[in-house]
Amino acid sequence: MARSSSPSAPSCPSPTAIIIGTGLVGASLGCALSAAGWQVHLRDRTISHARVAASLGAGTIAPPIRTEVTLAVAAVPPAALVDVIVEALSDYPLATVTDVGSVKGPVLRSLQERGVELARYVGSHPMAGSQHSGPVTARVELFSDRSWAVTPHPTSLPESIAVVEQMVADCGARLVRMDADDHDTAVAQVSHLPHLLSAVMAAHLIEVPAGHLQLAGQGLRDVTRIASGDPSLWGQIVSANADALRPELRAVTQRLVQLIEALGDTADVAGDQACGQVDSRPRLRTQLEAGVQGTRRIPGKHGMAPQSYLQVVVEIPDAPGALARLFADASRAGVNIEDVRIEHDQVREVGYLALWVTAAQASGLRTAMAAGGWQVQP
Amino acid sequence: MARSSSPSAPSCPSPTAIIIGTGLVGASLGCALSAAGWQVHLRDRTISHARVAASLGAGTIAPPIRTEVTLAVAAVPPAALVDVIVEALSDYPLATVTDVGSVKGPVLRSLQERGVELARYVGSHPMAGSQHSGPVTARVELFSDRSWAVTPHPTSLPESIAVVEQMVADCGARLVRMDADDHDTAVAQVSHLPHLLSAVMAAHLIEVPAGHLQLAGQGLRDVTRIASGDPSLWGQIVSANADALRPELRAVTQRLVQLIEALGDTADVAGDQACGQVDSRPRLRTQLEAGVQGTRRIPGKHGMAPQSYLQVVVEIPDAPGALARLFADASRAGVNIEDVRIEHDQVREVGYLALWVTAAQASGLRTAMAAGGWQVQP
Repeated sequence: MARSSSPSAPSCPSPTAIIIGTGLVGASLGCALSAAGWQVHLRDRTISHARVAASLGAGTIAPPIRTEVTLAVAAVPPAALVDVIVEALSDYPLATVTDVGSVKGPVLRSLQERGVELARYVGSHPMAGSQHSGPVTARVELFSDRSWAVTPHPTSLPESIAVVEQMVADCGARLVRMDADDHDTAVAQVSHLPHLLSAVMAAHLIEVPAGHLQLAGQGLRDVTRIASGDPSLWGQIVSANADALRPELRAVTQRLVQLIEALGDTADVAGDQACGQVDSRPRLRTQLEAGVQGTRRIPGKHGMAPQSYLQVVVEIPDAPGALARLFADASRAGVNIEDVRIEHDQVREVGYLALWVTAAQASGLRTAMAAGGWQVQP
Repeated sequence: MARSSSPSAPSCPSPTAIIIGTGLVGASLGCALSAAGWQVHLRDRTISHARVAASLGAGTIAPPIRTEVTLAVAAVPPAALVDVIVEALSDYPLATVTDVGSVKGPVLRSLQERGVELARYVGSHPMAGSQHSGPVTARVELFSDRSWAVTPHPTSLPESIAVVEQMVADCGARLVRMDADDHDTAVAQVSHLPHLLSAVMAAHLIEVPAGHLQLAGQGLRDVTRIASGDPSLWGQIVSANADALRPELRAVTQRLVQLIEALGDTADVAGDQACGQVDSRPRLRTQLEAGVQGTRRIPGKHGMAPQSYLQVVVEIPDAPGALARLFADASRAGVNIEDVRIEHDQVREVGYLALWVTAAQASGLRTAMAAGGWQVQP
C-alpha cells in the first residue's frame, strides 16, 4: 500500500475533503485520507456518528471553508444519495463530488433528470464493507488491496476524475475504471447475487431445529456471513439494481431447479452406491465441477493474474516427521510452496511429492532440497 | 481442548487404532489421536497417501496385531464405506468400528441388509473438513472445537459407544449424539444445502465476464469458498443424502422465486428511490430480515449458548483520539467489549455509547470508566 505523507492530485496541492455520512465506509475513508495527509471534515445527519468517527481519527467535525474543499464524498444510504450529491455540488462550488454508492446507473440518470451541471461529479464504489455498520467499526485499512470502481460519465472533467482516482490511490485500493451500467451488471453478479443467495440460505435456517444447528460448521458460517448485513441498507441497494439483478437471479434459480431434477436422476442410487456401484448422478457432478471452475475465475486477493508455477518433484520420505522437516527446509530457503500433490507409481510402489512454486523460486527449491539430502527428480 | 497424555476409555487401557483411508480427515485424525497417546496404524489403497500421513505424524504404516485393535475408523469416500466397515468388523474381531462418513442412514441400512452383526459398529461424523483434500493438508487441530456427531443404532454396544466418544474427546471435538436419520436431515440443512448454493453461485461465475470479476470482494469469496471442494467426493455425499436434501432445496428455490417476484413489486422504484421516496420493496425487506434472524440462530464458534450481556453507557467524548483511549482503558481493565452501539439524544444534541459486556464484567468496566474520567450513566 503506497501512501505518500503529502499526496498531491494534479489540481489540488493541499487537498481538503468533506465526507458526508460517517457510517462504516465514510468513517473508514476519513481515517484513510487523514492518514494519507488530507484535511478531512466530517458531516452526518446524526451528529453522534460524526463525533464517534472524529474521535476514531477520521477527521474533524468543524465545517470546512466552502471554497477550499477539493473533494466532497457522499457516503450516505442509496435512497439519500442523489439529494446529497446535488447539495454538495452547490455547497462546495470548486469541489469534485463523488459518492460511494453500490449502484451507479440509476443515480447518474436521476442526477441528469434533475438538470444539474455534472462536470464535477464522478461516481465511485469501493468493494469493501462488512456485515457490521456504523462508525465504531471503522478501520483505516478497510480499502487496502480492495477494488474500487470509478465510473466517470461522458461529461466528467478530467481534473475531477484525477481527484477521485487520487482518493482511491491514497486509500491503498485498486482502481477499476468502468462505465456506470457495466458496473451495475458487474455488482449484480459478484455482490448482490451472492448477498441474496446468502440471505435465502440464512432465512431458511429459521425453519431448522436448534438441535440440527449444533452440527453447523465453518461452511455454513462462511456462506451466510454477509446475510447478517443491515437489511435496510441492502434492501435499498438491491432495489436500486433490480433490473440488472433479475436475470442473474433467474439463471441461478434455473440451476437449482436442474439440481433438484439431478438429485432424482436414479431411483435407487443410495442402495447402489453403498455397494460401491454408483459414483454420483452425472448432472449433479457436472454442476459441482462447474462450481469448482467458477471459483477459479475469481481473481486472487490482490487481483493479480495467476502466476505461472513450476513443479519440483521429490520422493516421499519413509520416516515419521520427515515431511515436516522437508517443509521446514523449503521455508528456511525462503521458498513459498504454493501447492503440493502426491503422485504414485502403482507398479514400483513408490510415491512422489510434486511441490509447486513460482518459476522464480524453482531453482532455489531444487538447491535447498538437494542440500537437505532429499531425492529430487531431474 | 482437554487432551490427556494417556487417555483411557473404559474398555481399553492402552488404545490402538487403525485408520483406513488417509485423506485430510483420516490423516488429521491420526495426528490428533497420536498426540493424545493412542497407538495409530494407517492404511490406504494408495500407499503413498499413507506414507505422507505417517511422515506428518499421523501414525505408522506397519500393520497392527489384529486382536489388539481397539478402534477401526473407516475414513474412505462414501461409495466405499460399507465394504470397508464390513471388512474391518471381520479383520479386527475385538475392535469397535466407526466411520467418518457424511451420511449415516443409508450406510446403516446397507450394513443391516448385508446381515452383518453390528453390535461393535457405531457411526460418527466430524463436522470438519476443508476445500482441500488429501493428507498433505492434515492438521492435528482439525477437529478441535468442532462438532462431531456420534450416531449409535439400537444394537450398538455401550462399550463401543464409549470408545467412539473417547475418540471424539481426544480430538478436542464437541460430542453431539444423534439418531442416524436425524443426522442426515441436519447435515442436509446445515452442510449439503449450503454446499449446493455455494456451487450454483460459483458455477454461475463461468458466465460472468472477467472484467466484472475484478469487482469481486470478500463476500463472493466467502459464499463460494466451499464450492471448490472435490466434486467427486461431494457428488457422492449429496447423492447419498438426496432424499433428505430435495425438500430443503425446494424450499430455498421457492424463496428465490419469491425474491424475483419481490424485485418486481414496484415498476418505478429506482426513480422514486433516487428521490428518497421509497426505501425498498417490502417483500424483499422481509426476506433480508429473515436472513439476519437466521444467521443469529447459528451457535457461536464454541457451540455455547449466547451469554447474557449488560450495557454500560458513556457519553461520547468530543476530542480526536479519545475513543481509542476509552477502548484502551477498557482493555487494560481486562474487560472484553462485545458490542458497541451509538445512541443519540436529538433534542439535547448529545450522544452516548452503549458498551455491551458480559454481566460478570459490567461492574469492572464501570469502575475502569469512572477512574479514566469518562462520563458514565448511572
